[in-house]
Amino acid sequence: MKPMHAVALLVAVAAVALIATARGGEEPPPAAPVFGVTLPDGYRDWPLIAPAQEAAPFDELRAVVGNAVAMRAFRDHQRPFPDGTVLVKRAWKRVPSPDFASASIPGGATTVQVMVKDSRRYAATGGWGYGRFIDGQPVDEAQHRTCHACHAARVKDRDYVFTHLAP
Amino acid sequence: MKPMHAVALLVAVAAVALIATARGGEEPPPAAPVFGVTLPDGYRDWPLIAPAQEAAPFDELRAVVGNAVAMRAFRDHQRPFPDGTVLVKRAWKRVPSPDFASASIPGGATTVQVMVKDSRRYAATGGWGYGRFIDGQPVDEAQHRTCHACHAARVKDRDYVFTHLAP
Repeated sequence: MKPMHAVALLVAVAAVALIATARGGEEPPPAAPVFGVTLPDGYRDWPLIAPAQEAAPFDELRAVVGNAVAMRAFRDHQRPFPDGTVLVKRAWKRVPSPDFASASIPGGATTVQVMVKDSRRYAATGGWGYGRFIDGQPVDEAQHRTCHACHAARVKDRDYVFTHLAP
Repeated sequence: MKPMHAVALLVAVAAVALIATARGGEEPPPAAPVFGVTLPDGYRDWPLIAPAQEAAPFDELRAVVGNAVAMRAFRDHQRPFPDGTVLVKRAWKRVPSPDFASASIPGGATTVQVMVKDSRRYAATGGWGYGRFIDGQPVDEAQHRTCHACHAARVKDRDYVFTHLAP
């Protein structure tokens, strides 16, 4: 290969790498099957709606957090929840605190579950889209097919939402 | 009493009531003994740092939330925490969920406990001021005298803070 050709090749390789990197940065976050729900930006900084505990075999600590639309709706007792409401249930294995024998604290994160209100897009499921994620990746379609049936069977009269705002 | 005097008296009573109301609106929130810590504005909308569970006899669900300074310090692993850090530990009786046999949820609120970082004002207690509130009112001085001793005995090496940011 002539030197100029080698330089041209290097430049081409670098250009392809740059384009791939730029594309990677723009890639949409992985979306849940059935509903297309994604993990919302910044949910780790969202306000607390309520904590919960789940007994064995899950043995988890959980916490539902919400975006600003959700917090306003909870505070104003607005039902049904308005479009734009997003609820996120975070969950962790429950582990003993090393500091206090009487306390349990979050261990590793397990699932993150999302509910998004969009009364047109999700008209067939009470206006709610559902997403269930493990390590940032959505679980399979079969699991997503179970979400709404359970919410509809138990809390249809509360606009399909289990969690109450903690007092 | 002449009619005009009666009217003047009514006006005077109304004026006093108005002044009392106005003053009530400006009254500072009740401050904890020893430290002068108050319940921070808007803490019910603060982001979650981590949930926890406390075994019997307390049998509580708890959640530590933080202001923006606290969240940044947790995320950046900044220790000691900067002045302006405020942590609030909310707590509720743990009650069975009426919707799921395996789940526990918050019942009535019990205590709200506050830590405020001000390295000058609270130099004698590692830079932290403490407040413990029940129904919005601070508990007594004796209880406030116990806060720092326990934090210092157990987690001095973590800038006196028990809670870790949940993963």
